[in-house]
Amino acid sequence: MKQLLFASTATIATAGIAAAESGINLSGYGRFGIGYLEDRQNTTLTTTTANGTVNQFTADSDEAILISRFRLNIDGFTETDGGVRFEGRVRLQADEDSDTGEANDAGLNGARFSVIYGGLRVDAGNVAGSFDNLDDYFGTEPGLEEFLGQYSGVNYSFLEYESTGSGDNAVFFQYTVGDFAVSASYDQNTIFANNGTGATTDRDRWDVSAAYTFNNITASLVYGETDEGDGVEKESLTVFTLGAEFNDFYGTLFLADDDVADDDENGTAYGFSVAYNLGAATTLQLVYGDGSADNDTRNIGVGAIYDLGAGATLRGAVGEVKDGDDDGRIQADFGVWFNF
Amino acid sequence: MKQLLFASTATIATAGIAAAESGINLSGYGRFGIGYLEDRQNTTLTTTTANGTVNQFTADSDEAILISRFRLNIDGFTETDGGVRFEGRVRLQADEDSDTGEANDAGLNGARFSVIYGGLRVDAGNVAGSFDNLDDYFGTEPGLEEFLGQYSGVNYSFLEYESTGSGDNAVFFQYTVGDFAVSASYDQNTIFANNGTGATTDRDRWDVSAAYTFNNITASLVYGETDEGDGVEKESLTVFTLGAEFNDFYGTLFLADDDVADDDENGTAYGFSVAYNLGAATTLQLVYGDGSADNDTRNIGVGAIYDLGAGATLRGAVGEVKDGDDDGRIQADFGVWFNF
Amino acid sequence: MKQLLFASTATIATAGIAAAESGINLSGYGRFGIGYLEDRQNTTLTTTTANGTVNQFTADSDEAILISRFRLNIDGFTETDGGVRFEGRVRLQADEDSDTGEANDAGLNGARFSVIYGGLRVDAGNVAGSFDNLDDYFGTEPGLEEFLGQYSGVNYSFLEYESTGSGDNAVFFQYTVGDFAVSASYDQNTIFANNGTGATTDRDRWDVSAAYTFNNITASLVYGETDEGDGVEKESLTVFTLGAEFNDFYGTLFLADDDVADDDENGTAYGFSVAYNLGAATTLQLVYGDGSADNDTRNIGVGAIYDLGAGATLRGAVGEVKDGDDDGRIQADFGVWFNF
Repeated sequence: MKQLLFASTATIATAGIAAAESGINLSGYGRFGIGYLEDRQNTTLTTTTANGTVNQFTADSDEAILISRFRLNIDGFTETDGGVRFEGRVRLQADEDSDTGEANDAGLNGARFSVIYGGLRVDAGNVAGSFDNLDDYFGTEPGLEEFLGQYSGVNYSFLEYESTGSGDNAVFFQYTVGDFAVSASYDQNTIFANNGTGATTDRDRWDVSAAYTFNNITASLVYGETDEGDGVEKESLTVFTLGAEFNDFYGTLFLADDDVADDDENGTAYGFSVAYNLGAATTLQLVYGDGSADNDTRNIGVGAIYDLGAGATLRGAVGEVKDGDDDGRIQADFGVWFNF
Repeated sequence: MKQLLFASTATIATAGIAAAESGINLSGYGRFGIGYLEDRQNTTLTTTTANGTVNQFTADSDEAILISRFRLNIDGFTETDGGVRFEGRVRLQADEDSDTGEANDAGLNGARFSVIYGGLRVDAGNVAGSFDNLDDYFGTEPGLEEFLGQYSGVNYSFLEYESTGSGDNAVFFQYTVGDFAVSASYDQNTIFANNGTGATTDRDRWDVSAAYTFNNITASLVYGETDEGDGVEKESLTVFTLGAEFNDFYGTLFLADDDVADDDENGTAYGFSVAYNLGAATTLQLVYGDGSADNDTRNIGVGAIYDLGAGATLRGAVGEVKDGDDDGRIQADFGVWFNF
Repeated sequence: MKQLLFASTATIATAGIAAAESGINLSGYGRFGIGYLEDRQNTTLTTTTANGTVNQFTADSDEAILISRFRLNIDGFTETDGGVRFEGRVRLQADEDSDTGEANDAGLNGARFSVIYGGLRVDAGNVAGSFDNLDDYFGTEPGLEEFLGQYSGVNYSFLEYESTGSGDNAVFFQYTVGDFAVSASYDQNTIFANNGTGATTDRDRWDVSAAYTFNNITASLVYGETDEGDGVEKESLTVFTLGAEFNDFYGTLFLADDDVADDDENGTAYGFSVAYNLGAATTLQLVYGDGSADNDTRNIGVGAIYDLGAGATLRGAVGEVKDGDDDGRIQADFGVWFNF
């Protein structure tokens, strides 16, 4: 996502980092505050009857809970005399359980590896694909938890970096030359039908993107698809974004078309996001996202960020999240975010 | 394996942080040695019969085992120009399994977040409550594993920081002005009866404390209670401690009254602990704890600490742990503790 | 709790370590590339029928997968004025799942503790025994994954350091004086038969080694055994190795005799490995390992390492792995390894 405010990343390495040819960087952030979700519920029990019917019992949780995240990036790196940089990253992260309001243990995710040389970057392992690497896909996301996004109408599952899981073992390429950037990713995925006693299908997933920056405006086009599998049709997503940065203004326009297995989620998705720095320390945010399909999710809301200096900010947002024809639910949060 | 090629190990070590406004601190300790527990046993199998009877099979373990702990605190912090300090902590810890004498994997716990400004401190997440934050509650605890305590007669379960679990998602406040300190904690806890298919009860828990230091003596009073739940009555604990530090002497007096669901554990708990620095490098410890209820646990024992310098100490203790009318069991340990 | 003794919290920042008496070292490596295994398979489902028959369903995986490892060693240490060094290590590691080609989460292993004083070293916890500590046991292992070894004919399970599990809670001693080195390890292990409802047997495991270096040649002899258990006979392993280093050459000869429960795996194991630095940046490797028993595994293959500088190397190997009378399977890999 787009980080509007300065991130004073704390870096620790072998002696001064500027010249370090090999070392380990630690960086991350903490955030905590209060989160409100109308009609918050949690699943307390899941039973399966003899004939296979699955029953889920839910109970009302407290609508206002203590929300938090602790994130630490562990980056090992080496840079050869020839200027090729190798990196490996593992992330340590702890979040609250947003259903029950209780805390979770911190955990480790799957590793990502990178080779960087000039404008070329190749990632392998738990990588982000072309969609996930596009800042303007996310635009500005209001809230301490960044719970609102212009992309809410999209239902296609693209290749994402996972902070709390192993991720997919995939490959991502990116090449930047001047104002032009292209990228592509490929995720080899084999599905073993019927718990492996049935047929084996390749359900590989790939995406490509191109972006061009002219003056303060960036236009990006991304296409991705997932091969058809045993009983599952081919799925795809096309996204076009326009991002603009002028002095204190940052705004994005979002237009997408997804074609997924569920016909009630197919079709156009659209939205926009705006952030504006009001004075020296305050940023206001506005976001809208929706889709044309019956069951698409609509996001609409506003947020604010107040800069405390030294990488610490106060953040909050209020908005409505509405799935298809369901009643919209109000969600809001407020708290502190500090980079380290 | 044989490393044929050079390994440019990146090393990160001790240095001044005084001026850092944002960064990450790593600290911790290691301890290892031999632990003895009379009649040490472990549960090898737990079965449930068709009518719901639970059977536990236990077997004798070795009485003397290799005990150990590795603890690493990961603290991310940021301090604003206004003097407000934000901190986030996750702990990485590995312990032996004290039942079987085998090793456990290291694990991560739940995150704790803090805001500190002058004499005010607010913690959120996996926090310690007012009891757990009171040094004189614990007094001096003999042994490499600190296995003896003056508080042994207490059966109330107060809000504790968890080193090896997620902890409770709670809030703690502390305010210190001159020789006076007050604190309070609140833990919102919702119980979903009968696996969530029954009624939902709030079983919130809170505590408050006040402490006053006059010359070398600190008097502290703490009260905490847990709301009654579905079929469980209200529980509470009151603790009064006196702690004294004179030159080479540190001693505590402990008096408590707990009111818990089990009547055989209710009533008064009392104890004391003493530590005395004998010469330049040796500290002797003595502790006694007991309670008035039939099933209260009695702790009595002595320990010694020998300082090796550079944060390393040799430690050991021998004592008796006696639950109610059961036979007392001798426990002893000895080993090295080193801070890093 | 009350900390009577000084807690010299080691704070970590950018600095020289030469003089550090207490601190934390972080080091490790990343490696990633492509791995090929002929007829790679994975177990997709394991079922148990009513009469106890276990059925495993397997499916063909992709033969060529993305292989990777991220390893971070976390070493806390303290060195007293008297020159005694205490260390504690926990390792964080992420690997791909070599059966499915998907990624795994990173995990933490069991802790190892060390006391080092002059030529004496004592390890406790998740330790390596005398076999695992002998470099010439492994010789040079070709491949990014070091998948070929001269020891392939050995079937005895000796005490190993575990990078991804808790390891055994054991003790290891090593003493080096001049050109002579001896070591021993002891792993206390109690087996609870029949899930703990049966008899309890001690199945302790120990080993001893002696090594002597004359000029550029090191001769080592190691013996280890595991006590007989309930229904399992005593097992043992004797290994003799010769290692030689001359300028750009490193070679090892390996001879072993194992006596394990399975008669088809008993007998002599033998092999050799050779590494030769060809010019300034290239190392060639050759390895052969086999055994006299019917079901022993044969390894044969070649590898190459190309040094990129700054601790980064390109590595690859191709070889054949053959279990007993099964068809041999070709395995190969290639990728980058970078230390940090």
